[in-house]
Amino acid sequence: MSEPIIKFTRGVPAIESFNASQLSECAKSALEKYCDVVMQYGPAGGFPPLRSWIAKEAGVSENRVIIGQGSLQLQDMLARLLFQNGDLVYVEEPTYDRAATVLRRAGAKVAGFQVADDGVDVDAVEAHLRNGEKPRLFYIIPDFQNPSGVVMSLEKRKRITALAEQYGFYIVEDVPYRKLRYFGEECQTLFDLSPDRVVQMSSFSKLIGPGLRVGYAIVPESLAEKLCKYAEDTYISASYVTHAIVYEFIERGWFLPNLAALRALYAPRLTTVLKSLEENMGDLAAWQKPEGGFFVGMTIKAKVSADQLLERAKAANLQLTDGRGFFVNGGGDNFIRLPFCALKPDEIKSGIARLAEVIKSL
Amino acid sequence: MSEPIIKFTRGVPAIESFNASQLSECAKSALEKYCDVVMQYGPAGGFPPLRSWIAKEAGVSENRVIIGQGSLQLQDMLARLLFQNGDLVYVEEPTYDRAATVLRRAGAKVAGFQVADDGVDVDAVEAHLRNGEKPRLFYIIPDFQNPSGVVMSLEKRKRITALAEQYGFYIVEDVPYRKLRYFGEECQTLFDLSPDRVVQMSSFSKLIGPGLRVGYAIVPESLAEKLCKYAEDTYISASYVTHAIVYEFIERGWFLPNLAALRALYAPRLTTVLKSLEENMGDLAAWQKPEGGFFVGMTIKAKVSADQLLERAKAANLQLTDGRGFFVNGGGDNFIRLPFCALKPDEIKSGIARLAEVIKSL
Repeated sequence: MSEPIIKFTRGVPAIESFNASQLSECAKSALEKYCDVVMQYGPAGGFPPLRSWIAKEAGVSENRVIIGQGSLQLQDMLARLLFQNGDLVYVEEPTYDRAATVLRRAGAKVAGFQVADDGVDVDAVEAHLRNGEKPRLFYIIPDFQNPSGVVMSLEKRKRITALAEQYGFYIVEDVPYRKLRYFGEECQTLFDLSPDRVVQMSSFSKLIGPGLRVGYAIVPESLAEKLCKYAEDTYISASYVTHAIVYEFIERGWFLPNLAALRALYAPRLTTVLKSLEENMGDLAAWQKPEGGFFVGMTIKAKVSADQLLERAKAANLQLTDGRGFFVNGGGDNFIRLPFCALKPDEIKSGIARLAEVIKSL
Repeated sequence: MSEPIIKFTRGVPAIESFNASQLSECAKSALEKYCDVVMQYGPAGGFPPLRSWIAKEAGVSENRVIIGQGSLQLQDMLARLLFQNGDLVYVEEPTYDRAATVLRRAGAKVAGFQVADDGVDVDAVEAHLRNGEKPRLFYIIPDFQNPSGVVMSLEKRKRITALAEQYGFYIVEDVPYRKLRYFGEECQTLFDLSPDRVVQMSSFSKLIGPGLRVGYAIVPESLAEKLCKYAEDTYISASYVTHAIVYEFIERGWFLPNLAALRALYAPRLTTVLKSLEENMGDLAAWQKPEGGFFVGMTIKAKVSADQLLERAKAANLQLTDGRGFFVNGGGDNFIRLPFCALKPDEIKSGIARLAEVIKSL
């Protein structure tokens, strides 16, 4: 008799977090109230009431907000707009694999800088800049980083934004997990520190549901019109229908209680991951201890082969993401991303126990 | 006292064609019935029940269907997937300006072939192919072409698909207007004639509403998996929420009656355009006499400057699209696209009368 498969793979929300009755009510209401606007073509910036809400939250003018179909696609368009073939782009190492793909597809040469417990190695970045490297952009996930779970320290945030201003590169700050803090206190955003150098991207995927595909970017004044035009040339506009569903959800006062419910659902899952790692991994691995987000990144101490790890895990009915995908400079064989939000505490416990056995067998 | 502005600009549906109560009911129901699936991430091919419905309609296997966020974006991805910089692509002349932009942005060298009353000049195409040109793809709107309104004859459809097979290029057949035939009888599609050489694209934008952003492509087996992967790398998946709204609309039996209602709404508008042209343009211009779609293309007989035309039109409170945008080889100064669906018959009448005065003044 085989044990049920446990998927430590994609960073998806728990299905039980979707509130079908609230969402269907918002959908109905969005189409009743705004039918003429949301069913028609419209400007590429997005459904105006939601755009205006996001702008107000961020303290910027509306024209600096573009709401797209998930934030990944906005990154794709931004990269295509900004890069010439061979342009240098910095990312964290490890980083979100899909973002690296999008950057590379747009022609960028992607270089990674190692992430420590308090964020990316700013000393190394500064040394490269002093050596004359001219990155066009630095892609950073400062809060509960995907895949490591790391939060960048305030000191590093200040240093990296200062470097961006001094050396004239953009920072893309991706903050989809920021509002999912289960413990501790939040830190200023990079955008707060340097609102004209930082493109802040986020989405409602982790906060209401990914299927809406509602992500957004807050961009410097100088890029706003160009990015909207690029989006218009790509898809005319994103769907205002899903934008309006999100807007209704906010208008009815359901957004903040939903965040609270998500935190209540996910906090014990994070606690369970950390406790299970403590109990099972002992000397086998080192891991992050994030206070929020979707992921705990761990590194196996012994030298292992990713192929063998994935194969053994599979044989033990454990699905893992190939750690090498998160490392743009190569390596990553001994890195494991543990997404925990869509797993029940019991699955987390037995999954990590099973994973420890797999690692011991390598 | 100035006359109200009449917009002969974008080809958008009439706002009064959107059925708010049906749509809001579908939206509510889609989220009630399918919440777990439509709110989560999913495969890039699209919401499975709609994908399966489209596949069945087209008589192909489901894996050959990809539902995206409008069909323009699918073209963008297809172009990026297929083209190397400098690849040759054929289009009709005039053609849909946004499609030409997408092709060029992907690095294609775009060449246009003139559209006659029965479709593109296949003799000229054949001559170029015989001369050794190797187009990667031919973008064709065979039914109620945007911007001319022309329907390609069956004979030309047969010849162009035979050439595609012989010379090994893809045809992208864009058919968003095909089901909006108000008079006469329809012709076989290019896809019917050559299902392995033709990528057929369409959408529900003109048939239910653009704001849903639900478009799709039916692609040859050899491209299906690659295009889905490209889409996944771009936006993970399109929104299943809007896919499910479309599916509910179909499931409830509202799609065909909606088409009938659209035809009933638009047919008299088309009749009014043609009658008004007859009454006002006399010897000033030549125009198409389409039996459906969104557009009537007309050509001013005298040599005119587009800048002057647009300026005089604006002074007469008429908004026109710059005809030059539809011509990839240059020219188009004396071409005017008349979209009629979103204009009431009275607006069409006075708009065309006013346009005749503008042309006489040039």
